[in-house]
Amino acid sequence: MKIAEIGEFGLIKRISSNLEFRRQGLIMGIGDDTAVFRPGEGKWLLMTTDMLVEGIHFSGHFASYEQIGWKAVVVNVSDIAAMGGIPACATVSIGIPPQLELEAVEEIYRGMRKAARTYELNIVGGDTVKCPPLLVINVTLVGEADEGKVIYRSGAAPGDIICVTGPLGGSAAGLQLLLNRDLECPEEARREALSFHLEPQARVKEGLLLSSEGLATSMNDISDGLASELHEISQASNTGFVIDYDLIPIADATKEVAKSCGTDPVHWALYGGEDFELVFTVKPRALEKVERLFAKCGFSLYRIGHVTEKEKGYLMRGGPGGEMQISPRGYNHFTE
Amino acid sequence: MKIAEIGEFGLIKRISSNLEFRRQGLIMGIGDDTAVFRPGEGKWLLMTTDMLVEGIHFSGHFASYEQIGWKAVVVNVSDIAAMGGIPACATVSIGIPPQLELEAVEEIYRGMRKAARTYELNIVGGDTVKCPPLLVINVTLVGEADEGKVIYRSGAAPGDIICVTGPLGGSAAGLQLLLNRDLECPEEARREALSFHLEPQARVKEGLLLSSEGLATSMNDISDGLASELHEISQASNTGFVIDYDLIPIADATKEVAKSCGTDPVHWALYGGEDFELVFTVKPRALEKVERLFAKCGFSLYRIGHVTEKEKGYLMRGGPGGEMQISPRGYNHFTE
Repeated sequence: MKIAEIGEFGLIKRISSNLEFRRQGLIMGIGDDTAVFRPGEGKWLLMTTDMLVEGIHFSGHFASYEQIGWKAVVVNVSDIAAMGGIPACATVSIGIPPQLELEAVEEIYRGMRKAARTYELNIVGGDTVKCPPLLVINVTLVGEADEGKVIYRSGAAPGDIICVTGPLGGSAAGLQLLLNRDLECPEEARREALSFHLEPQARVKEGLLLSSEGLATSMNDISDGLASELHEISQASNTGFVIDYDLIPIADATKEVAKSCGTDPVHWALYGGEDFELVFTVKPRALEKVERLFAKCGFSLYRIGHVTEKEKGYLMRGGPGGEMQISPRGYNHFTE
Repeated sequence: MKIAEIGEFGLIKRISSNLEFRRQGLIMGIGDDTAVFRPGEGKWLLMTTDMLVEGIHFSGHFASYEQIGWKAVVVNVSDIAAMGGIPACATVSIGIPPQLELEAVEEIYRGMRKAARTYELNIVGGDTVKCPPLLVINVTLVGEADEGKVIYRSGAAPGDIICVTGPLGGSAAGLQLLLNRDLECPEEARREALSFHLEPQARVKEGLLLSSEGLATSMNDISDGLASELHEISQASNTGFVIDYDLIPIADATKEVAKSCGTDPVHWALYGGEDFELVFTVKPRALEKVERLFAKCGFSLYRIGHVTEKEKGYLMRGGPGGEMQISPRGYNHFTE
């Protein structure tokens, strides 16, 4: 069935009737001029937004609509996680070509509801508009963090240890498989790499543990590639960094895909982006505690380098190129 | 200069460097994974979003880019006003065709900053993405209201008086002038009607007065036309309504344009929308107090009818058609 057949109000009814409310504090969800909610006591609020455009950020040819909806929410959850917060309330604006099948929109919302359940947030409102010829999805997420416990990019200092919460480059590997369907690769590796790209996870629990224990001095989520994220931390903190080629975690599936492509997967880790792991810095004396807590919770932790004086620049040691400068490039809209 | 020449990061630098922060409580604006702010004590939060699509909601041929930016913020402020809240923090996502002139985007932000100054809110973050071939603007706004003071649609009861905060149909009049450039109309009326459409005001102070004094039993902003808004209040409150044709306020400029079109301007008031005045209900015994307070603050107030039992339906009395049923139709995306 085409959207045009049921109209805006029919569509809103369809997509809002299935929303469950996952969190306390919601006073009015969908159904008035605005949503209304009560912030937790002693909480600071976090607010982030991401716009996803068909053909730029996603394609119905590459991903299922459910995966697109999932990812549209999770990329925002990841930004909240990168501050050490937890997600609370989301609004979803969706610009729809009128000839799109109703089922596609319902699938997008199915993916969003799945993400809302997984990360315990409420979808509290939104806007559905006509947008020929493109599907455009904008999610805005408000989250909460304990007063004063937010982790910024700016707190790193020379000597701090740099850690990440999971293997990197997997999303780029999955994208390669989508762009090049003939790429030969073991089935299990293919499935895993595709899932890195299409069904990313946000590291909310890891971020929350670090903020609640006051353990991280700075943090970012890896949405634009490790190189870009470390540069952001370094610029905000007025430092340099050095990372070790051999310590950058790469999943076996990513290595398999890289082998098929004849590429070094560390390149994907540095510049690929969309891995949605967290990169953070800790004081050397806090590292043991972080390791103990992460192990206790079953979280992954990889130590990959340390923060240096600004003058030392941005370095990677080891690996085929020897010591090299890491440039800050990531994906740049409008020039690429 | 084309956006493509300065790239995403150049663009973000340009548009974020001019942002002023208007309100206390903002801890981190643009520059980290999320914005961070401290909600006022004892406040509930309001959250609303609107997506504006080129060719559907606006056109650079009809409006200046500054007016488009202004309106994109104000339509959200109006939703906060309709709950009796005040705006606090906004995020702006903008999907841009790469060949758009940089000046157009800067003008959009000039209009947004003007709205931010006028309504004392902070623009705290956003997303800028490539979106060929369309300009898409999404604004999400978080506002605050005193705990328990929010005004919903659902509180109207038979006997309550229906009031509006300003003349209606003006936005539709302005739109007619834009769609039909040859329409003859006195210059002053033309200017005023265009301003109704292109530079609407949100009634934050009026809404706040009603909520802080606990005077309104229900409220909506008139974004989809008086008929549609009164139906929403009636459905949420399980009531009917009757309004008086002769009491519906129409500005002189709107009457002039309507005369040129050979249209009844009350039709525009009922079905045109985008007037962004507030429609609200009050107990008869509270009316005098509302009138006194509004007069004291220099706010406009028009009494236009009253709430009835649901069985009485949705009526307009007086006027050329005599007593007639008011249908709930407004603009419906996808079917129009």
